[in-house]
Amino acid sequence: MLRPPESGVAPSRRLFLGSVLGALPTAALADPAASVSAPRRLPARLLPVPATASPALRAAIGAPFPPGWDSIPRDAAGWRALQAQSAATVAPHLPALRQHLKVQVEATRIAGVPAFVITPEDLPAANRDRLLVHLHGGGYVLYPGEAGAGEGMMMAGYGRFRVVSIDYRMAPDFPFPAALDDSTAVWRALAARHDPRRMAIFGASAGGGLTLALILRARAEGLPLPAAIAPGTPWCDLAGAGDSLRANEFVDNVLVSADGWVGAAARLYANGRDLRDPLISPIYGDFAGFPPAILTSGTRDLLLSDTVRAHRRLRQAGVEAVLQVFEGQSHAQYLLPGVPETQEAFAEIALFFQRHLA
Amino acid sequence: MLRPPESGVAPSRRLFLGSVLGALPTAALADPAASVSAPRRLPARLLPVPATASPALRAAIGAPFPPGWDSIPRDAAGWRALQAQSAATVAPHLPALRQHLKVQVEATRIAGVPAFVITPEDLPAANRDRLLVHLHGGGYVLYPGEAGAGEGMMMAGYGRFRVVSIDYRMAPDFPFPAALDDSTAVWRALAARHDPRRMAIFGASAGGGLTLALILRARAEGLPLPAAIAPGTPWCDLAGAGDSLRANEFVDNVLVSADGWVGAAARLYANGRDLRDPLISPIYGDFAGFPPAILTSGTRDLLLSDTVRAHRRLRQAGVEAVLQVFEGQSHAQYLLPGVPETQEAFAEIALFFQRHLA
Repeated sequence: MLRPPESGVAPSRRLFLGSVLGALPTAALADPAASVSAPRRLPARLLPVPATASPALRAAIGAPFPPGWDSIPRDAAGWRALQAQSAATVAPHLPALRQHLKVQVEATRIAGVPAFVITPEDLPAANRDRLLVHLHGGGYVLYPGEAGAGEGMMMAGYGRFRVVSIDYRMAPDFPFPAALDDSTAVWRALAARHDPRRMAIFGASAGGGLTLALILRARAEGLPLPAAIAPGTPWCDLAGAGDSLRANEFVDNVLVSADGWVGAAARLYANGRDLRDPLISPIYGDFAGFPPAILTSGTRDLLLSDTVRAHRRLRQAGVEAVLQVFEGQSHAQYLLPGVPETQEAFAEIALFFQRHLA
Repeated sequence: MLRPPESGVAPSRRLFLGSVLGALPTAALADPAASVSAPRRLPARLLPVPATASPALRAAIGAPFPPGWDSIPRDAAGWRALQAQSAATVAPHLPALRQHLKVQVEATRIAGVPAFVITPEDLPAANRDRLLVHLHGGGYVLYPGEAGAGEGMMMAGYGRFRVVSIDYRMAPDFPFPAALDDSTAVWRALAARHDPRRMAIFGASAGGGLTLALILRARAEGLPLPAAIAPGTPWCDLAGAGDSLRANEFVDNVLVSADGWVGAAARLYANGRDLRDPLISPIYGDFAGFPPAILTSGTRDLLLSDTVRAHRRLRQAGVEAVLQVFEGQSHAQYLLPGVPETQEAFAEIALFFQRHLA
């Protein structure tokens, strides 16, 4: 890295119209001692659907908030009902998704943990000895069973890789560290049978946070690391410190607000532990020695800040890390099957894996 | 690129709580025929200063809107007064900035165009035969003279490169294509004297848009291209189609809103021409054959969409393009001297140049 220059610009708080645009010496000006902490009042306003997204993505951007985004289950039974509902809602769409992606899905168990092996109909020779491990999202509570494997199917279908999607245990019955324990057990077993230089780990949202936590855990336990990772819009700060959790509140039409079910899911998963425990919120961990990473987010994503903070932390640790951000997308909207931007996002991730996997 | 799969997922508009989180087949769902176009109503709310930025950056994030962000000059005399004011406001800070950055600044003319040659006190041997060209921001109207050279000084000081900062002609007296004509003339002259494989072009905001327009123009005229470019939060869509122009309205405390002076500056610069002319708004141009690029923005940036759209367009054209987005920053706030995030942004740009320049 470059030698940092001495600080010593005379502090001043004078700001001028557009002062950050051109020369900005006036803003040299950010006087640390004069930190302003009052929140800014944002006025009510209208947010149009942008013409800069594909028609298919525009339909998703213009969709209303999902029913129930702000209804928080009162007890474990309520969470279980929500979990069952998430699986039931997804189930009818799975056959069409498998067909669309031209993948075969086989249920199995690895190290005692249920998982799905997803194989594309035409597996290219270059990918025959490669294996990707998928960790699904859903706030560590939603999408049990095959309902969680959709993103894995997309990676298998769009990227034409073989994928193992882990059906890890979830809250409310199995809070932290069950998901991480299961993922670690599967990783340990798979890395013993396959060359880890030909493997990658990926997943979005909770699956992105879990990807980062699994690397922390694998490194600590001396397990081999994969050749690359793809944490998508990683839920890596369950304490919710990221700026976009407020700046994109009500702008994101998937999670909508950290005050909705997602904030409650964080506490449910942590189960009384410190939300800043690096194995729960890996942004508070040390990313030194991490494998090359590609991170994906959207401009409206409630977790845009989690994503760019993780990107910066990886870069600060000297890790090769690539960031892609898609126009107008809310949280994890790069996972909409059949949308051009989705295929673009997966093509980039696949290319990154092709470059880094032996 | 990967073979695109056939589309054909049964359309449905059913959405479920968090449906985009895990499996998402439900969202397969984005039915292009059912595009929703009604704007969403965002409620008034409070936006706190995030704890996730450095103290120096927090002071800038918490600063009030710049006075005059919404006052649009009525005539050319008003714009001239604003231009003079921008230079006068910056001037007193230039000696401290030069000293902070340990750079020498020398006024010169190249191809008849005024410019500044900026040299760091300790120019590393590796950079002795390299030359960077700087195009300043300010909406094609602000920061004439040395007031525009601040970003060039930062690149020279933080990155320890020799920099030529072009003092191109500006509106209201010299609208499009004067800035591009001047920049092209200087580039033509410099590229004739120096090895373009050892050169790069960079600049933020209008300077980022001008960087992209200059590559379009150089390519069209058969001029050599530089080895790399660094368009920072490029103002590359003066028609303002990007989603963040609305999503980050009032969230960005530098430009604040496209309805402020910046939208008026777009029309002033275009001077009656189509705002979608690729030489005015390069996002509408073809980026094939562009040099490797590194783009910089912030999560609160009004031009975050311009930045990520340019990044995607470059990638779609097969260009090596790197994106970095900084937590909590408004438009071009990575240009605040003395702030840790600024040094980080410039260190990444310098590293990118070191990798790509012969």
